[in-house]
Amino acid sequence: MSNPKNKAGTPPIKSPSRSSRRATSYDVARAAGVSQSAVSRCFAPGASIAPATRERIIKVAVELGYQPNALAQGLISGRTNMVAVIISNLTNLYYPEVLAELSRQLTTRDIRVLLFSLNAESDVDAVLDQVWRHSVDGVISAARLSDAQIRLFGEHDVPLVLYNRTSKSAPAASVCCDSAAGERDLVERLLAAGHRRFAVIAGPADSYVGEERRSAALNRLEEAGITDVPVTRGDFSYDSGRAGVHAIMATGALPDALICVSDLMAIGAMDAARIDLGIAIPETLSIVGFDGSGPARWANYDLTSIRQPVRRMTDAAVAMLIERIEDRDTSAERRLFAGELLSGHSARLG
Amino acid sequence: MSNPKNKAGTPPIKSPSRSSRRATSYDVARAAGVSQSAVSRCFAPGASIAPATRERIIKVAVELGYQPNALAQGLISGRTNMVAVIISNLTNLYYPEVLAELSRQLTTRDIRVLLFSLNAESDVDAVLDQVWRHSVDGVISAARLSDAQIRLFGEHDVPLVLYNRTSKSAPAASVCCDSAAGERDLVERLLAAGHRRFAVIAGPADSYVGEERRSAALNRLEEAGITDVPVTRGDFSYDSGRAGVHAIMATGALPDALICVSDLMAIGAMDAARIDLGIAIPETLSIVGFDGSGPARWANYDLTSIRQPVRRMTDAAVAMLIERIEDRDTSAERRLFAGELLSGHSARLG
Repeated sequence: MSNPKNKAGTPPIKSPSRSSRRATSYDVARAAGVSQSAVSRCFAPGASIAPATRERIIKVAVELGYQPNALAQGLISGRTNMVAVIISNLTNLYYPEVLAELSRQLTTRDIRVLLFSLNAESDVDAVLDQVWRHSVDGVISAARLSDAQIRLFGEHDVPLVLYNRTSKSAPAASVCCDSAAGERDLVERLLAAGHRRFAVIAGPADSYVGEERRSAALNRLEEAGITDVPVTRGDFSYDSGRAGVHAIMATGALPDALICVSDLMAIGAMDAARIDLGIAIPETLSIVGFDGSGPARWANYDLTSIRQPVRRMTDAAVAMLIERIEDRDTSAERRLFAGELLSGHSARLG
Repeated sequence: MSNPKNKAGTPPIKSPSRSSRRATSYDVARAAGVSQSAVSRCFAPGASIAPATRERIIKVAVELGYQPNALAQGLISGRTNMVAVIISNLTNLYYPEVLAELSRQLTTRDIRVLLFSLNAESDVDAVLDQVWRHSVDGVISAARLSDAQIRLFGEHDVPLVLYNRTSKSAPAASVCCDSAAGERDLVERLLAAGHRRFAVIAGPADSYVGEERRSAALNRLEEAGITDVPVTRGDFSYDSGRAGVHAIMATGALPDALICVSDLMAIGAMDAARIDLGIAIPETLSIVGFDGSGPARWANYDLTSIRQPVRRMTDAAVAMLIERIEDRDTSAERRLFAGELLSGHSARLG
């Protein structure tokens, strides 16, 4: 089965094995003394070919180092060496880093990334139809999937690893940063430094990580007897962090510590506080974020945050997926990675 | 040819056309009165099957809405509906936006993105081997390709569109932002505001867009009689912009205008000037960037820059690629888009 697009390799030559170019189906046909169509049939599943002919062709193909193209190989092996990566909101700061790492780690294992980037997490259904059609070997999803959607992977027998997502009822393999522990850690350090008037800029209500971080912060504050905590919601964007500060101040609240569930919202909040309102950070107001993505480390922000161990998390996600591609019966597992506290100058910590 | 991964659709039922599930090869076989293996052979290229049988199977397949899986369809049509996108440096600020737009535009045309992200532009050779093997319908490359590499696309008969790259000698379709015109525009406006002591933070010597912007700036300055311009090189990162300012100041130069060939380097330079050196921007030093990416618009930077029309550029790249997939003989064409001047508060413009 020659690649119809590969014109360069088409004309048959006498001694293909001595040449540095890749052997074609024509070379194999010539050396095995069969027609090119017999070679194609040999590598097409379900096609009729005499066992003796098939054996001769395969022997010659191995000798010449003939490799049918990836499409044909996929049909033969049942593997496409493609993994779908479903990711939302690429223009956010955190996901490009995750995607770059996933791409690097899969590429070193000779696996290609079929990218599905979502404009909204609600686009998942349309994406899944494409996933089934493309016979990918497996899927890593950093987008939110419903339990019903997760169960579809089982029905289609496509291995799945969730990244920074988890499922309440459907069994699934997942890799997460321990957002709750990280957020509690931040709150404890803020309490230890004497902060008492807290406010929160949370994420959208349908964001798994956002809600986990919001609840963890509010629960820890409640344990400390602090219950009157204004909460506003953003969409993880810079602008929504900036607007969040104005929304909180408009309620008459004067927080001394502001917890933002993502770095980008924390950065927007810092600019709003300093530039729009002239509030000194961290002297008058401490601001903390979550992710530890690039701009959090810029000198102007030097944000106190929880750094997700992206490299270790993506490494685990890829390893877990490959395990499940090789053995479909591998049971569900959740790997939870601790985040690292980045102590910057945007907050006073105890 | 049933998808071996799709267990859900396997058991044959009486009236598949009345059911909402997708018809399988078994349904087609039953309705056409042939074996399932005959259906497989019908949709496998080069497989032997009697013409009358083939005709009957195809008629039934169309009636039942049977769709062989994407792999098999690729073998039949010679199209995989996959386009490779080669992109470098995803953790930079500009490329995620380009990738998100390309992904969105290709997806709306029912084309999937096979992602190749490079850690270094020099990794291209290894990527190209994978591109040939995966029988993609075409390639959009935002990574630098040599003329020899561009010619390989012709040999392999794979349509190619270059994004913000061009070729000196090999004919290729390309979409570019007119960096030279944009950079000249910035320099002219800086000159008009009375700036006379210029410095440049350029990109790496092997960056096409970086070099185009550097030359355009220096040429325009030379026309104005300004030739003593310190130039330092960065790698497009925040840190290299910050280091660039220190390198320029270390030469004893005291520029009143600093031209950075990317926004991220301009942002690093602004932080270095303000925070490390206490220089007032734009009163003492004007700083300009290039790209118009997200953080350039953050209140703290409000960077004067040239905004690349990413949506129009990606739209053009996708349209040009599809033209070439449908007609391989479409001649080379270069589409050059004007950037838009973003007049922020990081520079005094005339």
